[in-house]
Amino acid sequence: MSDTRPDLGIGMVGYAFMGAAHSQAWRTAPAFFDLPVTPRLSAICGRDEAAASDVARRFGWESVETDWRALLTRDDIDVIDICTPGHTHAEIAIAALEAGKHVLCEKPLANTVEEAEAMADAAAAAAERGVRAMCGFTYRRTPAVAFARQLVASGRIGTIRHVRGQYLQDWLADEDAPLSWRLDKSLAGSGALGDIGAHIIDMAQFVSGDAIASVNGLMQTFVPTRPVGGDHATLGGTSSSATERGPVTVDDAAAFTARFVGGAIGVFEATRFATGRKNALRLEINGTLGSLAFDFEDMNVLELFDATEDPSVAGFRRILVTEPTHPYIAAWWPPGHGLGYEHGFTHQVVDLVTDIAKGADPTPSFADGLAVQRVLAAVEASAVDGTTHQIGATA
Amino acid sequence: MSDTRPDLGIGMVGYAFMGAAHSQAWRTAPAFFDLPVTPRLSAICGRDEAAASDVARRFGWESVETDWRALLTRDDIDVIDICTPGHTHAEIAIAALEAGKHVLCEKPLANTVEEAEAMADAAAAAAERGVRAMCGFTYRRTPAVAFARQLVASGRIGTIRHVRGQYLQDWLADEDAPLSWRLDKSLAGSGALGDIGAHIIDMAQFVSGDAIASVNGLMQTFVPTRPVGGDHATLGGTSSSATERGPVTVDDAAAFTARFVGGAIGVFEATRFATGRKNALRLEINGTLGSLAFDFEDMNVLELFDATEDPSVAGFRRILVTEPTHPYIAAWWPPGHGLGYEHGFTHQVVDLVTDIAKGADPTPSFADGLAVQRVLAAVEASAVDGTTHQIGATA
Amino acid sequence: MSDTRPDLGIGMVGYAFMGAAHSQAWRTAPAFFDLPVTPRLSAICGRDEAAASDVARRFGWESVETDWRALLTRDDIDVIDICTPGHTHAEIAIAALEAGKHVLCEKPLANTVEEAEAMADAAAAAAERGVRAMCGFTYRRTPAVAFARQLVASGRIGTIRHVRGQYLQDWLADEDAPLSWRLDKSLAGSGALGDIGAHIIDMAQFVSGDAIASVNGLMQTFVPTRPVGGDHATLGGTSSSATERGPVTVDDAAAFTARFVGGAIGVFEATRFATGRKNALRLEINGTLGSLAFDFEDMNVLELFDATEDPSVAGFRRILVTEPTHPYIAAWWPPGHGLGYEHGFTHQVVDLVTDIAKGADPTPSFADGLAVQRVLAAVEASAVDGTTHQIGATA
Amino acid sequence: MSDTRPDLGIGMVGYAFMGAAHSQAWRTAPAFFDLPVTPRLSAICGRDEAAASDVARRFGWESVETDWRALLTRDDIDVIDICTPGHTHAEIAIAALEAGKHVLCEKPLANTVEEAEAMADAAAAAAERGVRAMCGFTYRRTPAVAFARQLVASGRIGTIRHVRGQYLQDWLADEDAPLSWRLDKSLAGSGALGDIGAHIIDMAQFVSGDAIASVNGLMQTFVPTRPVGGDHATLGGTSSSATERGPVTVDDAAAFTARFVGGAIGVFEATRFATGRKNALRLEINGTLGSLAFDFEDMNVLELFDATEDPSVAGFRRILVTEPTHPYIAAWWPPGHGLGYEHGFTHQVVDLVTDIAKGADPTPSFADGLAVQRVLAAVEASAVDGTTHQIGATA
Repeated sequence: MSDTRPDLGIGMVGYAFMGAAHSQAWRTAPAFFDLPVTPRLSAICGRDEAAASDVARRFGWESVETDWRALLTRDDIDVIDICTPGHTHAEIAIAALEAGKHVLCEKPLANTVEEAEAMADAAAAAAERGVRAMCGFTYRRTPAVAFARQLVASGRIGTIRHVRGQYLQDWLADEDAPLSWRLDKSLAGSGALGDIGAHIIDMAQFVSGDAIASVNGLMQTFVPTRPVGGDHATLGGTSSSATERGPVTVDDAAAFTARFVGGAIGVFEATRFATGRKNALRLEINGTLGSLAFDFEDMNVLELFDATEDPSVAGFRRILVTEPTHPYIAAWWPPGHGLGYEHGFTHQVVDLVTDIAKGADPTPSFADGLAVQRVLAAVEASAVDGTTHQIGATA
Repeated sequence: MSDTRPDLGIGMVGYAFMGAAHSQAWRTAPAFFDLPVTPRLSAICGRDEAAASDVARRFGWESVETDWRALLTRDDIDVIDICTPGHTHAEIAIAALEAGKHVLCEKPLANTVEEAEAMADAAAAAAERGVRAMCGFTYRRTPAVAFARQLVASGRIGTIRHVRGQYLQDWLADEDAPLSWRLDKSLAGSGALGDIGAHIIDMAQFVSGDAIASVNGLMQTFVPTRPVGGDHATLGGTSSSATERGPVTVDDAAAFTARFVGGAIGVFEATRFATGRKNALRLEINGTLGSLAFDFEDMNVLELFDATEDPSVAGFRRILVTEPTHPYIAAWWPPGHGLGYEHGFTHQVVDLVTDIAKGADPTPSFADGLAVQRVLAAVEASAVDGTTHQIGATA
Repeated sequence: MSDTRPDLGIGMVGYAFMGAAHSQAWRTAPAFFDLPVTPRLSAICGRDEAAASDVARRFGWESVETDWRALLTRDDIDVIDICTPGHTHAEIAIAALEAGKHVLCEKPLANTVEEAEAMADAAAAAAERGVRAMCGFTYRRTPAVAFARQLVASGRIGTIRHVRGQYLQDWLADEDAPLSWRLDKSLAGSGALGDIGAHIIDMAQFVSGDAIASVNGLMQTFVPTRPVGGDHATLGGTSSSATERGPVTVDDAAAFTARFVGGAIGVFEATRFATGRKNALRLEINGTLGSLAFDFEDMNVLELFDATEDPSVAGFRRILVTEPTHPYIAAWWPPGHGLGYEHGFTHQVVDLVTDIAKGADPTPSFADGLAVQRVLAAVEASAVDGTTHQIGATA
Repeated sequence: MSDTRPDLGIGMVGYAFMGAAHSQAWRTAPAFFDLPVTPRLSAICGRDEAAASDVARRFGWESVETDWRALLTRDDIDVIDICTPGHTHAEIAIAALEAGKHVLCEKPLANTVEEAEAMADAAAAAAERGVRAMCGFTYRRTPAVAFARQLVASGRIGTIRHVRGQYLQDWLADEDAPLSWRLDKSLAGSGALGDIGAHIIDMAQFVSGDAIASVNGLMQTFVPTRPVGGDHATLGGTSSSATERGPVTVDDAAAFTARFVGGAIGVFEATRFATGRKNALRLEINGTLGSLAFDFEDMNVLELFDATEDPSVAGFRRILVTEPTHPYIAAWWPPGHGLGYEHGFTHQVVDLVTDIAKGADPTPSFADGLAVQRVLAAVEASAVDGTTHQIGATA
């Protein structure tokens, strides 16, 4: 079935967890949304050709590359979608932007502030040439979160006093869960703070429309050594029988207080040790006129308290964010028919493609990604010296 | 990217709400699940060729037909997927089965017991020739519901005493919502009872593993006339400015008590007038050893009470049905990353395709669909004469 | 410390569970509320003088009687508070009213419609002489329930379409729980229907402001025989080691559909077999402009949905009914400091005493109690013959 | 009605909010619990004799004093119950203990660490003479909280990793709420931190069975001036029409991270600006084997996650802490019939009286109160200098 809309060639680097989420998004977006251009799954790139080919077959990628540099030279590719680990982001993204390719880069933007700064600079330079860059803080595209932002922006909850952010998981609570590359600072850069703390920092700054000005935090590694998994790379969260244990060099958990530029105070926590909490990405904001509360474990719901009402009938409302008037929902199902985790990736594609087509800079920008990186670095520095750190251009 | 697995050609009839859900399911299933055969989106059929072509383009259907009979003669089509309104099901399904095509038929199986009986007979005859038929009560494939069935079947909650089923929506609560074909008995057959009551009846019988033996019910049309929408067929739930009103000839709500073959008693309710309830498909089952509770508005959760525990620590548990050990979940995302409404359709495809490949009869069968139809008919009869009706082979 | 307000002498018959609740209410009411008269705990009456004396000492009753008739002849007693089992209510209440004593009578008003009619007649006759009678459906005095009534009466949820009432407990789910007098029809009159179903019927009629017009129901005894407890009358819910079993002659559970005079339809259920539900007295009402939901297991909360709001921000609100603007709350604690089960009894005393002082007829009246009795009788009759029964003056 | 048990004479200082709660507790405890001695409401003391007399009449205090010193010389008084503001605690408590009277002192123990140290010293000295002292952190006596402590102590949740404490209220969110003495540091000593933060610190240390070792925090006054109420002392939370504004000299909110001696990390927050949160005293503890969560706005519930269960059926359980096996509950009502705010005060009386009778030192001790005071002081110091402070004997 032909279509007169122009194609937008996509080249994706990476094919694991994020690769599946992105692949499904690229092909689902044009099915449910009326896009100005049609994404074409041109090429997927992975060093393991067999594995990449399997993903290509499953999702319909037209070709497979084994070197990401090859994507940059192909004329049929307009967008580079970076789904690889954080330490590779800077090199790929900067090269792609310089090659004139739009870039969608998974979070965290980079493993260090320095890399993130270089990437933000590259994105700024590219933007002047009409080349776009977006950082993949996809939780912003959960309809309840996007709607929360609309409510704050419209003044519905007034001046913000409190921001309360948590990202609670429990997959490391077992002390004999094996040592993985995610627990090696030389590869992962950071532990809970960078991996999941980054999400709640971005979400807090996005929904509040405000920026963190200073932080004071602590980090903790509860389990200093774990069984070496040997070559059982796929053991995941199951216990290893290995008796040898190696060192965990990242944080298991982090917590910090914060002050926002606008005067609000914040409390943040990220951990992989909160037994029973599976993906509790939670944000509560208290303003002078009302409050909002969100928990990703109940992702189709936003709670709203309206302090301007008669106190007799005021109460936190459990809004099912599934009405056609809510962000992104009109493209999907009737009220009460909830969306799932991967829908956020589809919405990300919709927004990116729309911005590219109309020549607008998408958000979150690389500068937004850098802002998160600076907060992460300040928390780490604070955890070392026990003092309060300001967030600045040089962190 | 090539694949050595055989194709299974799909021909889908219908292209609206259910058409989109099914289309997405057909192409998503092989991406996330390892299927024994690969569904191929061979043809979509709709009388409105332009509209059908648009859906074909969006989801990747290879061809378009305007007469469903054409699908039956194509050798490249193995499965007929019926997504049209209920009054068309019997003719298409029976013809397809007789033509040797496997059939997936949306619920309700038919608009009358007589049609459903003919379909069940046709399915039984086809099964002897290795041709399979499934009725699309897709809520069975919600992981929390499938898991609830596993728990009951394993004896976890003991002997069932109570079944409490509700399907509550509110899109007709506005008395000036326009008259649509869904409110015309000659076209829709039934109102809330057949449209959504059918779901909760099937879910109750499926999860309990028991059958309703008798019912006693009432039906109510709260708003006997509504504004005639004229040719504004797409007005949907918005108020019409028309002053002319036409008669509503179906039920706005239905309620009934029931006795199950196994001795449990049940209470059921279906309505489009429960203000604030958007898609509250709820089931609670109390057994001698425990209880289960489910609400589709929180679809990734199953509540379980274990009555064998120390009373001091017993309580309804909010199980996030997102663990890899839960039905269907291993193919998707990590714990706490919830699924959405349309995932049930993908699971339906997975189960149907798997059964076809291994020569097994899928469930829910057409006989299951007929069983629901008989309950619906008995409730209607009871609502007329005010007496209790047994569910039998002749309703 | 002296007080110039006149005393109101109370004589209470009964001293068990309800006796404790009422005793605490009589002496707590004047401490927290400014009453026009001061209740004086003049006499408690029980056939077991030692047991009654113990309760008297604990709560401050001034004297003990062993024959309720003695209370009727005492000039220092103005109110007879009847806390004995249902089969004794009619005789005591009628005699007390004829003796010119105000009467507070525990629910159910009586064990039969005939007794209830005689009591309502006696109350009507007494009212003409300024003697007052109240039936103790104390759940009406839960602040959240009283507030729900205010909201319905003010038109906040519009015309009522649905009433959904449940009273779910689980203390008989164990098949070896011993046979008690509560399971003997000759003593208890009824099982779950009369004991707890009565509460949800009264609450539904009270909050809706409407009356049940007809019912169609079923009743079920799941466990037909139970261990005879012998003289172990206090075994309660624990398992008996006795091998002899005796017959259960009342219902374990009851369910019925209903039509209200005003056009709403209702679904009701009462059971002692809902594993995990301890005291789930639940009411949900859906109206054209909104909905209300209440569950006694979360008794300080009323949920409200306002259908007149922008759908984007509409949702069920969890109202903490602990504001000074809520019924009865100003006498107690600051917002968020919840009340408990027995506070309803204190509120009952407040309202009764206030009505007596100002010469008004309190509610629920004996006529209200009779109305509940008629519904119970109609459900029982319906359960026998399987047909719909109208609620009338003669049931 | 006579009783052979000895009396225990109570003399209470103060008669406002806490006075009512304590009065009701003193007379309710012996009604529902079998106490070894019988509290006798001997004297209430207040400088406003009329007001004190009114409370005396309502609750049955036998006499009224206007100088607390008079209570110390009365032989019929055994216990001094201090319900006055914090700055008066040290003088009264120390004098009472030296006079040989047992002391129950409301929280916070004092306004400064120095006062608290003197009080703890006095209590230690008195204990050697058999004179007892208890600090009134009454939330410990909420059954769900007491049960949480039992579960932690029994090892049910393993080694504690995370403590998450919040005390959220909103009664100062209105910027025009009037200036009260509570917002004047010279009188109140502290704002949200000392008033409500003290509760969550004590609860966290009590339930965890661990002590806070260091803190790093911030404090914030969002509204620096408020309308001077003039002599409208009773305006409370309503807006004042006064145009003159005076300075708020205490914190509106405080937040801090903490490390516990046992290795857990904590995050704490106290505020009167969390719009919609009325009395959200919340504690969540994550251990290696499970988690607990409590919120006083749903005070009859404790949530428990058991990480040792099969992940398929694991989930946070909503335990109704109303079973006879739960702390304090056997004296009250059947399961599911919840308790309210003031029941904690009754339980406090039960425990204090029992300890006095058996010659045991009650908890929380004055030393426990001092420990809280030291944490409060360390948070304040940290908020000033932005560095981490250890909790030590000298704060």
